[in-house]
Amino acid sequence: MDIDTPKGAKDFPPEQKIPRQEIISKLIKIFETFGFSPLDTPVLERFDVLSAKYAGGAEILKETFKLKDQGDRDLALRYDLTVPLSRFLAMNPNLRLPFKRYQVGEVFRDGPIKAGRLRQFTQSDVDVVGAKTMLADAECVKIAQAFFKEIDVDVIIEINNRKVLDGVLAGLQVPEDKFIDVILAVDKLKKVDLKEIEKELRQKGIKGKLVDELLRIFSTKGTNAEKVEKLRKIIKTNSGIEGLNEIEQLLSYVDQKSVEFSISLARGLAYYTGTVFEVFLSEKERMKINFTSSLAAGGRYDKMIGLFIGNNKEYPAVGISFGIEPITEVLKQKKQEKETDVKKTVTQVYVIPIKTIKESLKILEQLRNAGINADMDLNERGISKNLDYASALNIPFVIFVGEKELAEKKVKLRDMKTGKEELLTVKDVLSKLK
Amino acid sequence: MDIDTPKGAKDFPPEQKIPRQEIISKLIKIFETFGFSPLDTPVLERFDVLSAKYAGGAEILKETFKLKDQGDRDLALRYDLTVPLSRFLAMNPNLRLPFKRYQVGEVFRDGPIKAGRLRQFTQSDVDVVGAKTMLADAECVKIAQAFFKEIDVDVIIEINNRKVLDGVLAGLQVPEDKFIDVILAVDKLKKVDLKEIEKELRQKGIKGKLVDELLRIFSTKGTNAEKVEKLRKIIKTNSGIEGLNEIEQLLSYVDQKSVEFSISLARGLAYYTGTVFEVFLSEKERMKINFTSSLAAGGRYDKMIGLFIGNNKEYPAVGISFGIEPITEVLKQKKQEKETDVKKTVTQVYVIPIKTIKESLKILEQLRNAGINADMDLNERGISKNLDYASALNIPFVIFVGEKELAEKKVKLRDMKTGKEELLTVKDVLSKLK
Repeated sequence: MDIDTPKGAKDFPPEQKIPRQEIISKLIKIFETFGFSPLDTPVLERFDVLSAKYAGGAEILKETFKLKDQGDRDLALRYDLTVPLSRFLAMNPNLRLPFKRYQVGEVFRDGPIKAGRLRQFTQSDVDVVGAKTMLADAECVKIAQAFFKEIDVDVIIEINNRKVLDGVLAGLQVPEDKFIDVILAVDKLKKVDLKEIEKELRQKGIKGKLVDELLRIFSTKGTNAEKVEKLRKIIKTNSGIEGLNEIEQLLSYVDQKSVEFSISLARGLAYYTGTVFEVFLSEKERMKINFTSSLAAGGRYDKMIGLFIGNNKEYPAVGISFGIEPITEVLKQKKQEKETDVKKTVTQVYVIPIKTIKESLKILEQLRNAGINADMDLNERGISKNLDYASALNIPFVIFVGEKELAEKKVKLRDMKTGKEELLTVKDVLSKLK
Repeated sequence: MDIDTPKGAKDFPPEQKIPRQEIISKLIKIFETFGFSPLDTPVLERFDVLSAKYAGGAEILKETFKLKDQGDRDLALRYDLTVPLSRFLAMNPNLRLPFKRYQVGEVFRDGPIKAGRLRQFTQSDVDVVGAKTMLADAECVKIAQAFFKEIDVDVIIEINNRKVLDGVLAGLQVPEDKFIDVILAVDKLKKVDLKEIEKELRQKGIKGKLVDELLRIFSTKGTNAEKVEKLRKIIKTNSGIEGLNEIEQLLSYVDQKSVEFSISLARGLAYYTGTVFEVFLSEKERMKINFTSSLAAGGRYDKMIGLFIGNNKEYPAVGISFGIEPITEVLKQKKQEKETDVKKTVTQVYVIPIKTIKESLKILEQLRNAGINADMDLNERGISKNLDYASALNIPFVIFVGEKELAEKKVKLRDMKTGKEELLTVKDVLSKLK
């Protein structure tokens, strides 16, 4: 038997889970200050829900884990948290809108394993359902700004609008049946070589000067306002103009310093209808940290929920999803911790009884009651083995409980970093460690 | 298409998830003060790991969800967090012991749906690996005592020891091949009628006076010490005597007020080897709350990890698992909240702009920066619709931002419970709401 995790699934031992959990706690704190409330949906979904034609689309279904229950029902593991949210809304049509929820959960995609890509990974999503104005889209941008400021990572939030993309293509008279192909090709503009894109466009049947025109326009440089101006000259469709107005409105609600109108940004999922966002390290941060993937992404999907409910009512929705894996990776590179600083345990103090188990148990209880993360030797080992253990786990403090010290109503506290030892009452230990 | 969750899986909308999350946060806080560190293992496991003969056993495999990945590998959804922990230890043989970890995660069992039983549910486990002494078992009892005290639920922690059970059966000369049948039958002593157990024992081939003797001994009443004394007269095997000594030692390390030596307690899982625990509401609490299922349970499993590793070394381990669903249910019954007190959102204050969007956005930002959970109308609705919304979600405070008030550098704060309104500066609002 192979004792291993499944391909693309991994364990997070304490030294990795402790910083992950800190990130998740910070996200949740910010989600809640923004008035998003927690929702939990199951990992298991019905396959027909996830494969509904207005859900994630054909590409993602190829990567969906399928299974059956005892009753031979077709089930699947969720591939995102957005389709389950739409299903939840459909099942709760009387919910008060806007409904602002967050969810942190595991999602599953049975795709090829590339560097850093897992088949089980964690998403942390916020979504606003039932708000049509750009104030809701602005909430998503602001929440990203607040979070990355909190963890001191300098980012650029790229925004675009699907209606603008369609408007540009219509303006350039790209045949409508080629829209998706062209959008998926230009979406890679910031990631791959221009020549690659040119080749892909020609392969997809875009001809002659149109290719050059597409590349020229989607490579437009300038301030956000300048880009809006340039596109106003190309876009003529009502929907395209509406998209541009939405971009302008959204920009007016947010601090534009870290926001870039990126007219080639598209995002792969089929359900987006308006604003799309994607968050990357800023160029400044990229000089220090070698990381190019996106850290968060999302967009507006005004149609999916209504289609799920099937009542033709509008359920405008917009959300953003934070990737725990890439954010953890960036913070790890940024911190560059020494091995001796890595937290391998949450324990702050380790009690070593020297033939004083009962008394040590009492002191341990006092520490814990005071809210201090405390542990004790559970194996009746000798002093040197215990010190070795505490040191290997980078536990900051050790307390020796010996009979001699107890006679003076004291214990010995050792700072494991400096090696300094002090004879203190338990009360003094408590106030020192708190 | 059926818009629904899979059978046995359910959503937790905010009014249910908010109290669940509070429980989980309290558990994690206590786990960490006890020096347990977080570990995460994937939901997906290899099927051959979960079906190893020294893992959860044949019964639970019947309820295990199986699936395959693209490479046709046999996978499964974990049915507990203990087998994955053992697999993790096997993959990390150089880990420092004792290894104290906690994990909160979803587990899956494709079993029959009875009242309150789900196919996806949440476990919160703490385990100590690499500690043989009863100090480790005592940690599990103490952590249960600390948690249920924290949430103010009066419980009784039943403890027993598999070696004691075997010792009693050997002492009564029950044939060894009947041990499991008898143990599973007497395990139900507190749950079903004595006649039922008698019938089950006879069906399993236990004959004559032996049945009466079994029932008499396993129904023994008395203090913990009295039960130990009585069993000392019956148990003659070395292992049985060791088990009794362990029980005595464990009892000596804990506050016995809420601990009962329950000599019929067995627990269903195959991997237990020593101490077993199960936590129930106390009789006093059961007078007020109608809930008989266990709230937490666990035990010692000294063999599983070594068998996984296959190196014949000993990896003594003991742990306890808290059931989030039953604990939530008990707290719900205990609180008996009025509909108007149910938290339907985390939002503490809701900002209503009266033609003052830009200014309101600034005030909203100030509230959030101060750590107050704040939301704002995102739909440019009128006052009465907004008040109706805030009231339906039980949001405690509303702020009206009108031009007249802004001219005085003030806003109007409304207490939604009392209806009282005050004209305050934003600074005063902040200090009032914090």
